[in-house]
Amino acid sequence: MKNITYIQNLNEWRNEFAFFHSVKVRFSETDMFGHLNNTVPFTYFEEARIEYLKQKEMMQDWDKSSMKTIPVVADLQCDYIRQVYFDEKLKIFVKSNSVGTSSVDLHYMAINEKDELSFVGRGTVVQICPNTGKSIPWSDEEKRKLFTKISF
Amino acid sequence: MKNITYIQNLNEWRNEFAFFHSVKVRFSETDMFGHLNNTVPFTYFEEARIEYLKQKEMMQDWDKSSMKTIPVVADLQCDYIRQVYFDEKLKIFVKSNSVGTSSVDLHYMAINEKDELSFVGRGTVVQICPNTGKSIPWSDEEKRKLFTKISF
Amino acid sequence: MKNITYIQNLNEWRNEFAFFHSVKVRFSETDMFGHLNNTVPFTYFEEARIEYLKQKEMMQDWDKSSMKTIPVVADLQCDYIRQVYFDEKLKIFVKSNSVGTSSVDLHYMAINEKDELSFVGRGTVVQICPNTGKSIPWSDEEKRKLFTKISF
Amino acid sequence: MKNITYIQNLNEWRNEFAFFHSVKVRFSETDMFGHLNNTVPFTYFEEARIEYLKQKEMMQDWDKSSMKTIPVVADLQCDYIRQVYFDEKLKIFVKSNSVGTSSVDLHYMAINEKDELSFVGRGTVVQICPNTGKSIPWSDEEKRKLFTKISF
Repeated sequence: MKNITYIQNLNEWRNEFAFFHSVKVRFSETDMFGHLNNTVPFTYFEEARIEYLKQKEMMQDWDKSSMKTIPVVADLQCDYIRQVYFDEKLKIFVKSNSVGTSSVDLHYMAINEKDELSFVGRGTVVQICPNTGKSIPWSDEEKRKLFTKISF
Repeated sequence: MKNITYIQNLNEWRNEFAFFHSVKVRFSETDMFGHLNNTVPFTYFEEARIEYLKQKEMMQDWDKSSMKTIPVVADLQCDYIRQVYFDEKLKIFVKSNSVGTSSVDLHYMAINEKDELSFVGRGTVVQICPNTGKSIPWSDEEKRKLFTKISF
Repeated sequence: MKNITYIQNLNEWRNEFAFFHSVKVRFSETDMFGHLNNTVPFTYFEEARIEYLKQKEMMQDWDKSSMKTIPVVADLQCDYIRQVYFDEKLKIFVKSNSVGTSSVDLHYMAINEKDELSFVGRGTVVQICPNTGKSIPWSDEEKRKLFTKISF
Repeated sequence: MKNITYIQNLNEWRNEFAFFHSVKVRFSETDMFGHLNNTVPFTYFEEARIEYLKQKEMMQDWDKSSMKTIPVVADLQCDYIRQVYFDEKLKIFVKSNSVGTSSVDLHYMAINEKDELSFVGRGTVVQICPNTGKSIPWSDEEKRKLFTKISF
């Protein structure tokens, strides 16, 4: 496999994942080259990221107008390992790679039904105040939660 | 051409359009069958509808939190006449077919570069209050605007 | 509820559905008005339609280049009954309303977790030859399958 | 501005762009947080990338079944600098940052109407044979084209 800057040792990196969210490739997500369009993994990352944060009880007020903080994506990247096709079932794994004062570096791994890597990625999420746009530090409790493994 | 319930006389119907908005088919909007995915014309309808209402100065406060009314789609339909391919340029025509107390029946027509019908559609838009969800009657001024032809 | 041309008696119409496919509203499927964007139900219809046809064993060669017929959407419509929000779970029901020589009129119904109608729709699918673009009549076996109820 | 690994000197980096493709943010591309959903910049990158390669006459047979090579995305990343809103007009700039044997590292920059950076990105495109999936080296002519600046 090609060199990916955010993966030092692939086996170790892979073993640190516990949480995953399952998706199935929609017909409308393919393109005329016959496989999953390259923009769609980011949609899967978003869906899996939200499920991951919900499991950690960090999205309790997510859809309430009263929410005091919102998670905002600061950057995202994806490395495409293998072509993905219509109707494939993928497990989108998510883990916290490192936690900053008000941010977390989340890593992503998509595994197909043959247990092969389909694509991987990462991206920083920052907790901000929706009114001011300023970053809000995590509480100690939140930092602890972000590093607790939850498996399914 | 097959029978379409909202088109009595195709030539007359076609001649009543004046406004259009241009789009070009994106690669990500195709699917593995090699043509425009059937869900995308509704995205084009939305984009053209908003441009149409903006031209009529009916969307002035559209993106302001102070807006007192918002246009909501009550129903939508599309009849697919001809396959559409990557990179095709389409003119999406919009017209007001009939105006109700607080609603308007908008018709849509997509024409390709050979001046052929690619797909057609229609749908009712209702003006509602975003807080109560109740319909808000058009003013006489708004009704007049909805029936004034604007060409480009 | 408003009048919908393809529903004569709502209770009867509703009771004829047996098959459904479940979806959950993605964050990326909402828009700045705070609810499900009006273009997304057609994506759900496509996903549910394919699952419906697969259950009837009519999509066996779907992703093979050797496939002799493909199902093509001739028209689609959706009536929006109730606002749909992020993270809602919906059951997308599908049924064959009537079968023609080479086409089938499919009806759709989206039900939320409170068992309320969220949106409904319909659309004709035509079986065509991918090379010639001509319609291909259903076999008697296929017609029979299209009218057999399968529940889950 | 935060540190971005693929930008050493922002002014120099920015000045090297010449080609751009214009987009306008669609309503359906916003999400319930009120701004452009984070998955959409990758769609803009794809659209701009294809226009960039077309200008260089490297996509001549793009939509023909006879095409001998196709460009495939090996990785993609995006850094979000500023919130983007409905109806904003963005210029999506593209440049070739470096060219390998059969790949090119493309950089992207989105500039709003106030000439501010909205988001930036990069990603490697590899030229492959659609039948074998193997990478195909660029010709000298193609390498030369990839480094010729074209402005608009």
